[in-house]
Amino acid sequence: MTVRFAILGAGRIGQVHARAVSSIPAATLVAVAEPFAEAAQRIKDTYGCDIREIDEIATSDDVDAVVICTPTDTHADLIEKFAKAGKAVFCEKPVDLSVPRVKEALKTVEAEGATLMVGFNRRFDPDFMALKAAIDSGKIGDVEMVTITSRDPGAPPASYIKVSGGIFRDMTIHDFDVARWLLGEEVTTVMAQGSVLTDPAIGELGDYDSVNVILTTASGKQCTITNSRRATYGYDQRMEVLGSLGMAHAQNTHENTVEVAVEDGYHKAPLLNFFMDRYTMAYANEIAAFVDAIQNGTPTPTTGLDGLKALELAEAAVESAQTGKAVTLP
Amino acid sequence: MTVRFAILGAGRIGQVHARAVSSIPAATLVAVAEPFAEAAQRIKDTYGCDIREIDEIATSDDVDAVVICTPTDTHADLIEKFAKAGKAVFCEKPVDLSVPRVKEALKTVEAEGATLMVGFNRRFDPDFMALKAAIDSGKIGDVEMVTITSRDPGAPPASYIKVSGGIFRDMTIHDFDVARWLLGEEVTTVMAQGSVLTDPAIGELGDYDSVNVILTTASGKQCTITNSRRATYGYDQRMEVLGSLGMAHAQNTHENTVEVAVEDGYHKAPLLNFFMDRYTMAYANEIAAFVDAIQNGTPTPTTGLDGLKALELAEAAVESAQTGKAVTLP
Amino acid sequence: MTVRFAILGAGRIGQVHARAVSSIPAATLVAVAEPFAEAAQRIKDTYGCDIREIDEIATSDDVDAVVICTPTDTHADLIEKFAKAGKAVFCEKPVDLSVPRVKEALKTVEAEGATLMVGFNRRFDPDFMALKAAIDSGKIGDVEMVTITSRDPGAPPASYIKVSGGIFRDMTIHDFDVARWLLGEEVTTVMAQGSVLTDPAIGELGDYDSVNVILTTASGKQCTITNSRRATYGYDQRMEVLGSLGMAHAQNTHENTVEVAVEDGYHKAPLLNFFMDRYTMAYANEIAAFVDAIQNGTPTPTTGLDGLKALELAEAAVESAQTGKAVTLP
Amino acid sequence: MTVRFAILGAGRIGQVHARAVSSIPAATLVAVAEPFAEAAQRIKDTYGCDIREIDEIATSDDVDAVVICTPTDTHADLIEKFAKAGKAVFCEKPVDLSVPRVKEALKTVEAEGATLMVGFNRRFDPDFMALKAAIDSGKIGDVEMVTITSRDPGAPPASYIKVSGGIFRDMTIHDFDVARWLLGEEVTTVMAQGSVLTDPAIGELGDYDSVNVILTTASGKQCTITNSRRATYGYDQRMEVLGSLGMAHAQNTHENTVEVAVEDGYHKAPLLNFFMDRYTMAYANEIAAFVDAIQNGTPTPTTGLDGLKALELAEAAVESAQTGKAVTLP
Repeated sequence: MTVRFAILGAGRIGQVHARAVSSIPAATLVAVAEPFAEAAQRIKDTYGCDIREIDEIATSDDVDAVVICTPTDTHADLIEKFAKAGKAVFCEKPVDLSVPRVKEALKTVEAEGATLMVGFNRRFDPDFMALKAAIDSGKIGDVEMVTITSRDPGAPPASYIKVSGGIFRDMTIHDFDVARWLLGEEVTTVMAQGSVLTDPAIGELGDYDSVNVILTTASGKQCTITNSRRATYGYDQRMEVLGSLGMAHAQNTHENTVEVAVEDGYHKAPLLNFFMDRYTMAYANEIAAFVDAIQNGTPTPTTGLDGLKALELAEAAVESAQTGKAVTLP
Repeated sequence: MTVRFAILGAGRIGQVHARAVSSIPAATLVAVAEPFAEAAQRIKDTYGCDIREIDEIATSDDVDAVVICTPTDTHADLIEKFAKAGKAVFCEKPVDLSVPRVKEALKTVEAEGATLMVGFNRRFDPDFMALKAAIDSGKIGDVEMVTITSRDPGAPPASYIKVSGGIFRDMTIHDFDVARWLLGEEVTTVMAQGSVLTDPAIGELGDYDSVNVILTTASGKQCTITNSRRATYGYDQRMEVLGSLGMAHAQNTHENTVEVAVEDGYHKAPLLNFFMDRYTMAYANEIAAFVDAIQNGTPTPTTGLDGLKALELAEAAVESAQTGKAVTLP
Repeated sequence: MTVRFAILGAGRIGQVHARAVSSIPAATLVAVAEPFAEAAQRIKDTYGCDIREIDEIATSDDVDAVVICTPTDTHADLIEKFAKAGKAVFCEKPVDLSVPRVKEALKTVEAEGATLMVGFNRRFDPDFMALKAAIDSGKIGDVEMVTITSRDPGAPPASYIKVSGGIFRDMTIHDFDVARWLLGEEVTTVMAQGSVLTDPAIGELGDYDSVNVILTTASGKQCTITNSRRATYGYDQRMEVLGSLGMAHAQNTHENTVEVAVEDGYHKAPLLNFFMDRYTMAYANEIAAFVDAIQNGTPTPTTGLDGLKALELAEAAVESAQTGKAVTLP
Repeated sequence: MTVRFAILGAGRIGQVHARAVSSIPAATLVAVAEPFAEAAQRIKDTYGCDIREIDEIATSDDVDAVVICTPTDTHADLIEKFAKAGKAVFCEKPVDLSVPRVKEALKTVEAEGATLMVGFNRRFDPDFMALKAAIDSGKIGDVEMVTITSRDPGAPPASYIKVSGGIFRDMTIHDFDVARWLLGEEVTTVMAQGSVLTDPAIGELGDYDSVNVILTTASGKQCTITNSRRATYGYDQRMEVLGSLGMAHAQNTHENTVEVAVEDGYHKAPLLNFFMDRYTMAYANEIAAFVDAIQNGTPTPTTGLDGLKALELAEAAVESAQTGKAVTLP
């Protein structure tokens, strides 16, 4: 039983998911919905699917599951609509920028007994999965301190930043999810600092471009997250975990493995620069996991609750950066 | 104009090429020919193509190109047959184990004005392409000394070794091609040594499992090749080039980027163990290059002559290892 | 003009400095003072110097400089005594555990016009010096975010922890100094978290064994420090600096450069495990720099003020970890 | 019982050994002999020893051992002279450029029951010792294939090359010794190729600057050696050993551990450029081993026979490179 997909939204992330769905034998892409005709046509041409309206998809018998890649402010509505329509729902992070709205949407999902998976792609990256497997194997003992370094090659445009909810809700949210995943215990306290160092325009929009966060759990495990909107040398994505018996870390991926040694030293290529190149396998793996869960009737590996928890950490970080006080989660 | 393919032979390497052809937008897989029904069916099921007889494919109007993945002793006959049938031909290395037979086949290809590409996949690996690009950029100056390390995870079965033509014609042949590619000048002298170190059964078949070769060009550039049929730590594939201004090398690919540090030290995963995993991109890239050449009427990046030259180096190596003398090429 | 030294205190760090002084052509070790006879004798035997009382050294005409390696609670008194005695003074960190006492001692030093250098050895490590030189060269542009990872192989004995002033004053103090050095700007805000994860006995003494700190400067530059009292894999000492044009980091030093690759992967030796091995060159370099300053009448590269500033950051960290509030420095 | 040394010859390598002797607690430098007054004075000033004539040293009661650092053509005579004089003798490689002359000198040493150690410093480098220890531990099983890469930063002056005996006797000789050490079995066959690629002047002197060698033992173990007189990126010194259970290699040493990542990629410092910096520890360790052997009356770890064997391999390589034939050792 192949799972039949529709993609809602054919922007950059919609293209990513269309490719991911098409690369999985157990999935097939049936339709795409997108107001911008050219983008819809590109997916239709590349992967051979229909173009349909969103409402049409909700009532299409030949669609089992949808991937929500529309703007953030539509996510919660669409989750509810398609949960009610009996479709399995994969939604890009975040579910919404407001915690109460997320909770409401999740209530609907629960009431409908619907399947909802939230797109935290990093959990599905082969290197980070190998890191998690190393931790789970017990090799490094009990997890004590996690260090996450995450730097984008460059800031998104001002138009995006305006509606992004700010760096903590837009960028750090991935790291909050990773922190929960690697710590294996819920975070109880958040301390955060934010600065504007790469571009004053970001500050004028009320946002930061450079932040550090310390998370603490009830048993005292800690996690630091360091983010910057600018890394000239590529998309810097590292995770390190110190345990009672040792340390494990996943290293960055360079464009290639060539080293050139000349008079002034040794040179290697920069890191893979674009999230779509860096996380190609992760996007395919997360859709494959979603398909597995649908086919086997098992829980999805990332859930609406994961989306909510990450958002709550983001809100706490915003408050801590503004007040200079540690924020305790309920 | 999509190029329409048939795969001849559905063994391990046939499966590799079926996947490669299917992954390229500009190519489509139309048919497979294979006497072993199950293997043919697997390709049909996975990629949705017909199963046909070889003779049928030769006269199929809906086939533009064939990929020859049958046993080595059929390669030359099939090249001739399909060159005459007006199909573009991609043939796995080697063209034949006999130099005169290769020359005869190439004469037919030339007489028919046919397109022939020989499968030297390493030239299409992204890391080795980056190495070649670094050399071509002039960064390391004039090439002087090349070092190629190539070790298989394990020896093939005795049944394969018997018909392989020996390690130089079967395994080192890839390195001979790489040597010519990186040296940028034809080899004039070959010195070789062979030993049986990993399995006496290989020696009983009259073959070696461990060899070293020194190649020299007219201008004195040199290349060493070191091969073993056994590397417990994975598929070891390295190339290094010393030039007048510096050195460039392509490093191995591990299964993942995780490092685990515990009391007795730091640990990383072994190398990718299987040629199909290590060279997934290379196989896709070489078929893409073949498709490009067909579509644009340009020469293929690797030719029948490349196949011939590599085989001549292999023959010279056999002779040198037996006689203990440097063998000079005509 | 060789600088003639006396070492005050012949414990572990006294032995380190005796070796450092003896390895420098421009310095000579004249005397050691130490109540524990065996330790004094060991230095006398190894380096061929006298054993004298502290008071005797203060009036010795053949001593130009002293290195204070006695217990922390004697540092301030000895600094004052030897500043008044007209000797150049090198004092191991910290000057004292109390900020007012430090200030008083520095006042005496200033009043006497004495030379005082505080031992922040990391600034003199060749790798960290190369990191600083890379920053100063402008290669990575303006410094924005600093990340310091510092983990000890194991916790000191309880008896030491009791009088250490706590992890922030004893261990993190090195990182506070490094942060100031690399940021190139004074820190204005300190946020800290502390946990007891490696040994409950440390918690019973009122101390932490695992801490994270975020420092911020007036212009918004940030630095995170992550410390643990336990790293099974060796003495983990890393510094990373993100700038407007790139990133620079100094990597750890393994026991040797050998890699062993077997069926389960690649293995390297653990890190140098002991501060005396890891920082052999740093200790020699810092004494050489002290000698230079004495001979040329130039300021010492690390000063009493550096000692004070680092201690103030430690105090702020203690307060922040206790109150959960960012602490602003005057 | 401290061993009392005299250094014969105060050139570059004499300075190295003077430093090594002075750094070892169990050794003391008593005298230096050198016709060039300034060089002798430098050693006297730095290490506080006498300047004496060679003949005087041979009869000095306060000298137990000599280190021969004079020009190659005096080595054999001095070995014989000091063996007869009852001194322990450490001689820099090679013993002589002529095999018969070496044999004669070794006969004298044997007749006198003298202690002779030949300076193959690489065996005493901490990283290469760790490599040998890894092999001896059995981790990689039985040794099968050894790969030695050895490239000098730049060629010596023509005046030196003229009297050096050629690249195989002067430079590769170190690798021949290492090959024997790592293979653990005597070499029976030598194949070699030589080219002039870096400087035609070297060819005019009848020498090569770029060579490759294949060594084979009776049981079929093989070793390749690749040498060049020019490596712009530093002093390239690598050893790799493939065994039945895995592979071990010692990596190069960079000037420092700093990595700088900017827009065009990651950059590291070149390799340590000078043999005196690269092998500081090796020189100290080999003199320490010599002292140990003298004090304990045990055999030296490298002997006159090692010097002879390496020279025989060099002669075989010269012949093979000239004739194009494998040379079998007696």
